[in-house]
Parts: sequence; structure tokens; C-alpha cells
Amino acid sequence: MPLPSGFVFFSGKSGFYNSEREDTLLIASYEPLSAAAVFTTNKLEAAPVRIAKKLLKENRFVSGVLINTGSANAATGKEGEDDAYEILSFAQNYFSLNHPLLPCSTGVIGVRLHKEAIIRALSEAEKHFDIERAARTIMTTDTFPKYEEAQGSGYTICGITKGAGMISPSLATTLTVILTDINISPLLMQKYLLEGVETSFNRISVDSEQSTNDAVILISSMKQTPKCFSKSEFKALLNEILYRLALKVLKDGEGATKIIRIYAKGFSSNLEAEKAAKRVAASLLVKTAIYGGDPNWGRIYCALGNSGANISEERLKIWIGDFLVFDGSPCSYDEEELKRYLKDSEAVDITVDAQIGNGFYEFYTCDLTEKYIEINAHYRS
Amino acid sequence: MPLPSGFVFFSGKSGFYNSEREDTLLIASYEPLSAAAVFTTNKLEAAPVRIAKKLLKENRFVSGVLINTGSANAATGKEGEDDAYEILSFAQNYFSLNHPLLPCSTGVIGVRLHKEAIIRALSEAEKHFDIERAARTIMTTDTFPKYEEAQGSGYTICGITKGAGMISPSLATTLTVILTDINISPLLMQKYLLEGVETSFNRISVDSEQSTNDAVILISSMKQTPKCFSKSEFKALLNEILYRLALKVLKDGEGATKIIRIYAKGFSSNLEAEKAAKRVAASLLVKTAIYGGDPNWGRIYCALGNSGANISEERLKIWIGDFLVFDGSPCSYDEEELKRYLKDSEAVDITVDAQIGNGFYEFYTCDLTEKYIEINAHYRS
Repeated sequence: MPLPSGFVFFSGKSGFYNSEREDTLLIASYEPLSAAAVFTTNKLEAAPVRIAKKLLKENRFVSGVLINTGSANAATGKEGEDDAYEILSFAQNYFSLNHPLLPCSTGVIGVRLHKEAIIRALSEAEKHFDIERAARTIMTTDTFPKYEEAQGSGYTICGITKGAGMISPSLATTLTVILTDINISPLLMQKYLLEGVETSFNRISVDSEQSTNDAVILISSMKQTPKCFSKSEFKALLNEILYRLALKVLKDGEGATKIIRIYAKGFSSNLEAEKAAKRVAASLLVKTAIYGGDPNWGRIYCALGNSGANISEERLKIWIGDFLVFDGSPCSYDEEELKRYLKDSEAVDITVDAQIGNGFYEFYTCDLTEKYIEINAHYRS
Repeated sequence: MPLPSGFVFFSGKSGFYNSEREDTLLIASYEPLSAAAVFTTNKLEAAPVRIAKKLLKENRFVSGVLINTGSANAATGKEGEDDAYEILSFAQNYFSLNHPLLPCSTGVIGVRLHKEAIIRALSEAEKHFDIERAARTIMTTDTFPKYEEAQGSGYTICGITKGAGMISPSLATTLTVILTDINISPLLMQKYLLEGVETSFNRISVDSEQSTNDAVILISSMKQTPKCFSKSEFKALLNEILYRLALKVLKDGEGATKIIRIYAKGFSSNLEAEKAAKRVAASLLVKTAIYGGDPNWGRIYCALGNSGANISEERLKIWIGDFLVFDGSPCSYDEEELKRYLKDSEAVDITVDAQIGNGFYEFYTCDLTEKYIEINAHYRS
């Protein structure tokens, strides 16, 4: 599938990981792009987040997004902002772009940008139109490049994302850039992006850690103005792409072997259901039990009791997959069958019904394995 | 050191783990004991917690505490309560005790008590006065028995505890029984216990999982009425024993190799400092970095940003041990020295200063290792 019209990628090598790997990406357009974005709610936001927010406040038109990996440029104080501005300004001039670039950084916190290396990477970067290569350029602990594409009626939409750890809402999660060429207003873009993130990147957690750098950016070249433009089609495609990208992040969750989908229903409100679903998703004991293929539903039960949500033992029901394991008291089920379900499923479903009201929430996480520990005990060193 | 006067232990084998291991403990007194207790705040409290709360509401005098391991008797509905009452009633009759016994259970959630096996264990139990053996009897995934003793002026105080995983406040954590023979009022006992738990079992977390069964019980035979009784001495000894027991639980945290002590100061209130300290303690990335001996302080920084506490990059200071690693921007420090500190320390100190107000909080956790995953992925199967 071709890229949305009006975009070009530049991938460069700063040498942060090794001299062979591309690690610096510029997504650019020689004509103005309209932009929308959602950022981390971490109070200690990184320099690129502060800068991007400021730029978007002043101007909804940009010339692209500049992403570096290796350093998050977080906890770097005033110097971190200066570094970022210097690189952005270089890129804007070097590539003769008329509008500002939005910066995104990912990597270790507390490390200054390797300014000269990134500038060299940009000046030697190769121009291309390959979305897979663009997605590969921004990987850190990711094990595969993550991108999605869809064809609308008269326009194209695609996206890349990265992230495997330090993944939790809200808002957003990881670095994600969605490109399109449809001509719609920036305000509508912002509205649809917010709504789409709410049912995608805000529904996933690998390790309950929210980074200082998370950003989901939507940019449009506005090249296409189809006669019969369906807003709802665009919205549905955007949601679909965000959702599929979010699930790819989860699938690549550091060390994960399985996705866990949690459906909380019957709570007194959606907020109560959200509390319950998120607590189960955060439970190390639930995550390790699923990893071990052990139908130890008592851990789900315990997490629900800790969630703060209103709940009672008598009314509570818990299913793992289609197996009803608790219904006011322990149910009898075929333990071997359930173990087989856990072992064979790439995605394990946990459903809980408080039987109190109509509150519902859906949330996704992954299992927790020795590999997560291994990756994160030795990530930097 | 002898036990506080008036107490006796009975250790029995229900065969839950294997026929060789004692797993059922009765702590009893043939004369009435006054009792105080603090229980889990998990909304889905186990049958023994519900029963003990009810008994203590009706009566502050008991004949002892009956603890079984293997089954938590949680999520067992009405039948679970019936099981517990049947066993308690057997024990009370069999040992000719005049007052009710407080039940405590620990083990897998959702498994009914092995009633006949526990009753047989009790009827064949051996009487003894060995606190180490009592502590050993109530172990589950614990790797060593946990007990503490202290001699007051004219009285004795001692305690046993168990717990290694599913450890997080509040309230209380794990099963803990403190015995004493000092004659003080049950109301004062309750007050001191609450205060003591606040600075001990409420300050530790292994995995942010709060069990359905947590209980800290203080019982006194009231045998000793020394002439010059110092309430403050008693309170200090009780606090000391609770604190030392809590640290033993942490030291035995499943798979843990190190204790992590977090000091949060300079926040706008103690509550804000508590939020910050607890978030850092819950961070898987902080826990794995400490395990890996990697001074990746960016993860502490990131967790602080997510804590919800009011905080600003410019004012924030972070120390690991005595090493100032962040002071508005990254500090330079001797990385090799800091790595050595992490490697060589049994307890790693993390201090953060928000420099906003006088709010302070201290909290303890442990590192997270592959071993935790291994234990919990395969605990039940």
C-alpha cells in the first residue's frame, strides 16, 4: 500500500545502538501538515513533550515529526530543551521545511541527547517511503517493527508505533505517529484522536509504568478531498489502526508470551468497572499465574477485593475463557481443560461480573515472565 | 528466652504439604486472653477474617488463635464459614478451652479447608513452648521461620509472623500473632497495635498485592502486673517487635535479594509524600533496576512523575544511597562507586526531596527477580 500522499521518511544512523542500525527518523512533508496530539499525563514530562505541546498551542501546522531513540531527553532540565531546539532547527533548515517539526524522544531517562550524532544522522539520512523501515527505525526494546495501514474512500491512513515496556495509560502510551492525507479540520482530528486513544492506547498496560515521553500524534497532508467523505468511515479506520497498533505494543510487551483481556461488567458504574479491570491487569500474581498456565482464579478474586470497587462475594462471578470458575463460591470445572485453554491461547480472556449494575470496562495486559526481569534488570548496563 | 507466661503451643500435621511437615498451629491459654487485632482492608475478606472480627466485636476475651496453612478459606462462601466454625468448635472442646478461638488461614484462595485433616492434625498435635517451631509451623512460601522476642520490665512480649508474597498494605499484612503477659486494658492494646502496625506492616510491600486474609493479632494472658509499669516502654517494645517482624517478611519477599528503603521528603503533605514513596516502591522498573545493580535513576524519576504527587523537575532531588543523582538536572557521580554500593548493600536507600514543603513518608519494599516469577508462575501446580 502506498503512503498517504505528501509524506516522505528519512532514516538515519546516530550510532546510539550500533553503527549498522537506523535509529533516527524524520517524517516530513514539504507542504504544511495539520496536526493533533495526545501526550503523557506524567507530571515530569520530557523536554520533547513540553516543546511539542507548546508548538501545537501556537500553531496547528507543522512540517513533520522528528524521532530519536536511545535518549528520552527527560530529566534533562533546561539544557534538554535547548538540545532539542537545536536539533529541530538544524533539521528544519537542512531539509528546507517551512514549518516547525514536532520532537519525540525515547530511550533512557536522564541522558542528554547525543546532539552531534543525531545531526550527523540527519545529514546522512536516506529518503524513503517504506513504512516498515520507518517503524523499524524507532524501535528500542521492541522485537518487531509495528505499523498499520488502511485505505479509506479516496484517502489513505497509516501509522507506526514503538514500545514494549514502561507501558501504561493514561494518556496515550509509547510513541505513535498516524499519517493521513484526508482534508479534515485539525479540531476534528484532535477530537477523533482523543476518542480513538481512549479505546486503544488507554486500554493497555504492560507493567503499570507510564513514561515521561508518551505521545500519539496524528498528522495530515490534507491532499485528498474526496467528494463523498464519510466522517464516520474515517473515525472507524482511525480507531481500528490505533487499536491494532496498541495490541501490537502489548503483544511485544517485554518478555510477554500472552495477551490477557479483561472484561469487567455488572459494576455500579463504568468507573467502578475500570477500577476493577485495571487492578486485575496490574496484579503481578494474576500475570504470573497466566504465564504459568495455572488457573489460580483466587488471585483474580483477591485483586478484585483490592480494587476499591464495590463488590460482594455472594454476587460475584468469574470466568477464565468460557470456564465459570467462581459463582458466589468455587465452581467445579474441568481443570485439565482449563489448563489446556491457558496453555494454547495467545490471548486469555478474564471476565468478571459484579452483578450490581451495568458498569462495563475492557482492558488489556500481558503476562509477566522471567524475561521481563532479565530485560529490565540489565537494560541500560 | 521463655514465652510470656500462660501460653502454650500445639503444632500438628494435616499433611497439606507433606506428612513430615507441621502446618497447623494452636496458640492457647487455659485462662482468658485479652485480644486486639487489625485486619486486611480487602473487600473480599476471607471467612476467618469475618469470623474473627465478629468474635472480637462480641467479646474481647479469647482462649487463643488457631492457624492453618495450605488453604486461605477465602472465596469459599457460607460453606467456608461453616468449615471454620466446625474446626474451631472441635479445638475448643478437645483442648477444654473456655473461650472462643480466633481463626487464621493462609494458602490458596478458593480451596475449602481440609476439615478432617485439620481436625486430625489438632488431635495428634504436640504441645510445646518453642517459638521457633511455632513460627515454622505457619510457613507457606516463607524460606525461614520469623519470630521476635523482647523482655520488658516484669513482662515478656514475643511474636511470630509469616508471609513472603501477596504483601502490601493497608492494613496489616500476612498473619502475625504477638503474645504478651502484661496486664493492660484491651482498649489500650488495640490503640497501641493500630499505631504499631502503621509504622511496620503498613510500610512494607513485596508485590503490591493485599491478601484476603491479613491479620495482626495481639493477645495477652494478663499474668503480670509489675509495680512500675511503663506504658511507653511497652509501646516501644511492641513497635520494635512489629517493625522487626515486618522487615523479616520483606527480607523473605519472594525471590528478593535486597530490601529497598524509600524516604520521601519535602512534599506538600505527608499524604503526598506517601503517594510518592508508594509509587516508587510499586514500580517494577525500579525494582528490577535495583536487582540488576543498575543505577538507572530515571525510573525513580518517572515513577515520581506518575505518583500523582505535586512535584517539579527544577526542585526535585534524588539520592541513591549517599549519591546525589538528580538535582534539577542530572548530577555527575562516580558510576562505578554507585554500582558497587548497589551490589554490596543488603538494603538500598532511595531518598527523594520535592523541596516544596515538609511532608515526609518512609516505605519499604524489595527488588523483583526472576525467582519471584518462577515461584508465582508455578506456586499452585
